[in-house]
This record gives sequence, structure tokens and C-alpha cells, in this order.
Amino acid sequence: MNPFHRVSIIGVGLLGGSLAKVMRKLGLAKSIIGYGRNKETLYKAKNLNIIDDIAHDIQSAAKDADLIVFCSPVQTIGQLAVEISPHIKSGCLLTDVGSTKEELILEMEKIIPDKASFVGVHPIAGSEMSGFQASSITLYDGAHCIVTPTDKTDPSALKKIIELWETIGAKVSSMSPKEHDFIFGAISHLPHVLIFALMNTLGSLKSENHDQITYFAGSGLRDITRIASSEPVMWRDICTSNKDSILYCLDRFQETLNLLRSGIEQKNELLLTEQFKNANKHRLNLLL
Amino acid sequence: MNPFHRVSIIGVGLLGGSLAKVMRKLGLAKSIIGYGRNKETLYKAKNLNIIDDIAHDIQSAAKDADLIVFCSPVQTIGQLAVEISPHIKSGCLLTDVGSTKEELILEMEKIIPDKASFVGVHPIAGSEMSGFQASSITLYDGAHCIVTPTDKTDPSALKKIIELWETIGAKVSSMSPKEHDFIFGAISHLPHVLIFALMNTLGSLKSENHDQITYFAGSGLRDITRIASSEPVMWRDICTSNKDSILYCLDRFQETLNLLRSGIEQKNELLLTEQFKNANKHRLNLLL
Repeated sequence: MNPFHRVSIIGVGLLGGSLAKVMRKLGLAKSIIGYGRNKETLYKAKNLNIIDDIAHDIQSAAKDADLIVFCSPVQTIGQLAVEISPHIKSGCLLTDVGSTKEELILEMEKIIPDKASFVGVHPIAGSEMSGFQASSITLYDGAHCIVTPTDKTDPSALKKIIELWETIGAKVSSMSPKEHDFIFGAISHLPHVLIFALMNTLGSLKSENHDQITYFAGSGLRDITRIASSEPVMWRDICTSNKDSILYCLDRFQETLNLLRSGIEQKNELLLTEQFKNANKHRLNLLL
Repeated sequence: MNPFHRVSIIGVGLLGGSLAKVMRKLGLAKSIIGYGRNKETLYKAKNLNIIDDIAHDIQSAAKDADLIVFCSPVQTIGQLAVEISPHIKSGCLLTDVGSTKEELILEMEKIIPDKASFVGVHPIAGSEMSGFQASSITLYDGAHCIVTPTDKTDPSALKKIIELWETIGAKVSSMSPKEHDFIFGAISHLPHVLIFALMNTLGSLKSENHDQITYFAGSGLRDITRIASSEPVMWRDICTSNKDSILYCLDRFQETLNLLRSGIEQKNELLLTEQFKNANKHRLNLLL
């Protein structure tokens, strides 16, 4: 694809840093401007030649850019967009990498001026790690990437964004912001909420002679609680901005858990075996 | 330590096979007899020189053995012990590797004759894999191993069993069967029940245009659902034999989950951040 002239990355952390690295490597940007709260990170990225320049205010980050990518926490994007709105050049393409989409896109479609376009994107490539030091040129390689157009999305802007992510090596799927938030409410946000709750339950339980019972845990518990190390502020924002889907999924989970609980209480061997066999089957699907 | 003369492994699967392999390697048994339902596995183990002989019935497995290790599903051990009881030689040491202890040990203390001793053991080394083909010489290396003596346990038998597992390379801790079942109800059985329930919830949820929403999952979901591949019959038995502890832990989890749910419902940012920070802290403890 033709390179962008001036790409502005707002938030040079895990996702923004990885995007800058891979765009640089593939020659997808003639120049890359970084903006962020952490000045040390920006100087580091500049010294490593991952960004060409540091924008010291959000307005100069927007000025002259033909691609602006919001990689900052979802809750900050609306306000930043308001601040740069008068400075966006005509034909500028704006996008993001946030984990929740519906609320943000409704907001962005009100803020972004007609002469520019916004396309919502969610690359499935985060982890419990965060920050520029965790960023990598291969983060998006083979990862799912969801674009979430609405009936207001400019088709040529959408096409360009899809081309960008496919060039980077991601598997792009398109769906509505609403369907995105439902699906990720289920397969990402629900598991995070459950694991946060599990970790807090186990962290506070004590036995007769042991104050920290997780001392005896095997590798299974370490694996499944990895996501309990995820960034609190990011997950607070995800929980509030995708409230409805998460509550819906929590209720579906609660029904399944209640069924299992009653199976255990009644020592219903048939039900338990059937439920566990089902789980085996669904887990196998996940690996295909 | 002095080697055992004749060790009988009842159930040559992941745990029994690994125990036979490491005892053979370290010269801890002059001869190893295997017994199990799967004849093919037993011939394979014999051909690989991991066991010396196959016992074709449980009585001949017990005869002349000075160490009998039950590595078969917990629910089968009581009945097997009844069948071998008249054939156990004087001074024989009996032990097991089961995941739940209190119910089993109460039962075994009634069955095992006074001339022999039983010591309950739980090496924390299982996984979602099972069967002899998954067994390994290093399975117990550095693993926690819980011995669960009662006031009826013969001190010299206990000492021998601790020595055996320490020689194998496990980190041995001692606690009552009741405390064991409480701790593992919390750190192992509760997480399994939750992940089984999560997997079944996600496996049956559909979105507007996608019947299998887990298609879009990232590596996080694959990691945390690994234990949803665990063996259904083994987990049915664990759930019924450790019912009380699991129900207690489920109730504690439910309280924590309800708190998080209300935080999401009310968009209580302070509560959510605090809960997630706590989870970060507890998870860090798990890695120390």
C-alpha cells in the first residue's frame, strides 16, 4: 500500500509502540509523530528511531497528519478528539485500537469534522503486559483485528484501514460496534471479571494453619490467573464503557454456574459428567 | 533411601506412570508391578522396562508388595483396597496420589489391616493431560507434594513416604486431610468449576452474525480455559468427594463476584480500580 505521509500515534505504549515499530519496518509511514503523557517513553522511542518526532501538545500532534491513531486509554479518546478537532487537516483518517467500541464510536461521530473520517478498530493483541517496553514488531502478526464500521463510515476510509491492518499481518474481520462489544464482552471482558474475582477470593481466604493458601498452587492456577495482572485503570474503563454486555454475559455465566453448583450440592454425577464433557468439547473448538 | 523390594502401582496413567519412571531411574524399587484397566498401556510400560511385571488381577498386585501406590481415580480406591485387604503382607506401606483426601482417608483407615499402614499423599502435578503417554520422569520435579497424616498414621510409615517424595524431588508439606481439602477446594477445585462454567457459557453464546464467538478469542482465553480440557470423570469425582469445601469456596467467590457486578452496574470507578489493584497484588504473590 502507499505509505502515509505523516502518522500521529497518540499514546506510545504496548499497542501504539508496536504499531509504530511495524509501520516503520514495513515503510508504511514517511514520518511518525508520537504523543503521550510519558515523556521518557517518547524520548526512548525517538532515540530508537521508532518515531521521528515528539509532539509536545495534542494540537501539534494532529496538525498536518494524514493518519491519527488513538492508542491511549478508551476513556481519554473523546476529550483528545475534541481538542484536536479544529486542527485536523482535510482528508485525515482517524482510527483507534480500543477494546470497546460502541460508546466511543457514537461519541467520535459527533466530534470528528466532515472533512475527516473515523474508523473504529480493535486489534486482539493486548496482554497483561503494558507500556512501550513490552511493545514488539510482531505483536499484531496473525492476530485478529476487528474493524467496526457504521452506516456513517466513509467506505474509502474503511478500505484504507483494512488494507493497513492486513499489510501489518492481522486477520481482519468486520462487524458492527454493537456486535463487537457483545462478543468481546463475552470472550474477553467476562473472563477478566471472573478471574479478577477469583484472584481476590483466593487472596483473602485463609486455612487453619496457612494465611496464604495460594502458596500450594500448581501451574494451572498461575496460567488461569495471568490476566489478573491486567492494568486496573484500563479494565475499569472497559467495565464502565461496556457495562450492558458485561452484565448480560455475567448473568448467562451465573445460570451455568448455578447449574454446576446444584450438581455438586446434589452429587448429581450424570449432570457433572455431562457438563464437564461439554466444556472439553467447547475448549477443543477454541484450539481449532 | 533404601529401595523398596516390590512396588505395586495401581493405575499406570499420568501420575502412576511418572512415579514408576522416576522410581526406576533413581533405583527406588527392586521390582515394579503395574496393575490397571488398560492392558495396552501396561504392555507398553513393560516393553519400555518401566514396570517389571503386569498383575492380571488386583490380588496378585497386592501380594508380596512392600509398597502399594493407588494412582487410580479416587472413587475406585476404597473398593480396590477392600479387595486386596486379605492379601496385603505384614509391614506393607500403602499410599495414593489422589486430589481429595478426607473422605478417602476415613474410608482407608477402616479398610487397611493393622499389620499395614496407609499414608495419604497428593502430589500437585496433574494437568489437563492424562494417561500414560503424558507421563514423564520430571513430572514431580520441584512440585509441591502434600502428605496428610491423621492421629492414626504410623509415624515411621509417614517418615518413609516423606523420604520417598523428597528423594523424587518434590517439596513436601504436611497438613490434615481436612485442611488439605479446604486449601485445594479453593486453589484448584473452585477454579476448575469456574472455568468449566465459563467455557460452557461461551460455547453456547451466539452473537447476531456469529454462532461461534470464541473464534475471535486472543491468547488470554486459550490460557485461562486450558483446565476446561480436564478429564470429566476425575473432576466429577473430585466435585462429589470434596463437596463441602467446594460449595464453601463457591459462596466466597460469589460474594466477591457480586461486589464486582454491583461496581460495574453502578459504574463505581473507585471500587473497580481498587478491586483490580487488589487482584494485581494477589497475582504477584502467586509468582513469588
